[in-house]
Amino acid sequence: MAAAAPPPPPTPAPSAPTGLPDSDSTPVGHPLFARIRLATPLDIPHIHKLIHQMAIFEKLTHLFTATESSLASTLFKSPPFLSFTIFLLEVSSHPFEKDSNFHSQSFTPIERIFNLDHSLIDPEAETFKNGINGDVVVAGFVLFFPNFSTFLGKPGFYVEDLFVRECYRRKGLGKLLLSAVASQAVKMGYGRVEWVVLDWNVNAIKFYEEMGANVLPEWRICRLTGPALEAYRDAI
Amino acid sequence: MAAAAPPPPPTPAPSAPTGLPDSDSTPVGHPLFARIRLATPLDIPHIHKLIHQMAIFEKLTHLFTATESSLASTLFKSPPFLSFTIFLLEVSSHPFEKDSNFHSQSFTPIERIFNLDHSLIDPEAETFKNGINGDVVVAGFVLFFPNFSTFLGKPGFYVEDLFVRECYRRKGLGKLLLSAVASQAVKMGYGRVEWVVLDWNVNAIKFYEEMGANVLPEWRICRLTGPALEAYRDAI
Repeated sequence: MAAAAPPPPPTPAPSAPTGLPDSDSTPVGHPLFARIRLATPLDIPHIHKLIHQMAIFEKLTHLFTATESSLASTLFKSPPFLSFTIFLLEVSSHPFEKDSNFHSQSFTPIERIFNLDHSLIDPEAETFKNGINGDVVVAGFVLFFPNFSTFLGKPGFYVEDLFVRECYRRKGLGKLLLSAVASQAVKMGYGRVEWVVLDWNVNAIKFYEEMGANVLPEWRICRLTGPALEAYRDAI
Repeated sequence: MAAAAPPPPPTPAPSAPTGLPDSDSTPVGHPLFARIRLATPLDIPHIHKLIHQMAIFEKLTHLFTATESSLASTLFKSPPFLSFTIFLLEVSSHPFEKDSNFHSQSFTPIERIFNLDHSLIDPEAETFKNGINGDVVVAGFVLFFPNFSTFLGKPGFYVEDLFVRECYRRKGLGKLLLSAVASQAVKMGYGRVEWVVLDWNVNAIKFYEEMGANVLPEWRICRLTGPALEAYRDAI
């Protein structure tokens, strides 16, 4: 838990996904090409920067101790979806080139075109550029992993973090990321997708409820960490 | 989540663990020998019954759809601690025989003697008996799995369920089960142990706080399930 899903757009994005790119149709306005793919160890530097931005956004930088090294030693140790899994969101002003490296038996990248009303300036494009052409930039990510419901007797997914960089918010990209996790859960026969939200974040709560989620009012998270956890080293 | 940790004893157990059985010392009073070991697929019938008792306790039987078959097809698919993991709590009025089947590289069973003031009658002993001698009974379990903190950049454990059968409550056994998970987390270098509690369950909250946990007041759980989740099957 800990890291929060930042508040997604409170209202439906003005420009909804228009489906997969179609070579016979020319996008109108200002097209933003978006792709969701499985992250790889090569993405760790960008992922680390995104997590740091999230900590700043949430005013929780005092809790931020992750390093590229700590992420590298704990992520990507299992096949996708069986443990900690990251979907990376990339965007471009041009159609994505087919990159067979990102296709796997586990997951075929998702592509959408968002037709924006205005052209978009990304002040951090240089920091988050990806790929050889430099036009593709990393815009966000979602980190999730299996959880388990004993009542259902089957797994689900827990979404630890959902983050979209500021200049790409309120366009439907956060919804696309979360939908990708929900869709994957259904395909795997899983029973639930769960995550947490701050109770004062009414915009986020409204957004999640519009996506079909229930907010459970009575449950509270208990956390044992730091010296209080360390005290159990020799307790058993 | 979903299934709750039942309210553990609000006060320290009257008879605290007294350490590993020692053949040179005769336990006084009414000794209860307790063992925590990794569960195996052979334990599924007992685990299923324990989950059902938990659903009754929480008045949530309408959410209980797990079957022995659904548990068998989803649990014990990974090495211990890397995915869904169950510690089983067994008790006996006699010392446990050494059972090398339960010793593994992953986890050495934990044994404790609880000296009770009164002898204990287990009305469900027949249902929950284990082992060839019939004196060992299953008294509870804890199901947990790895979660991940992006801020810490490392895993933790999430405790989905902690359950002790009614006649064995308020003796320190729930604390022993949760301590076993915390100790395992520390040994693995993990950063947190987390679980949830109902906000009105003041006895449980007090117990958890005495164990060193913080209850986070602001976070709420969001859950996408049932038809609302199913709707994402073809959304992507």
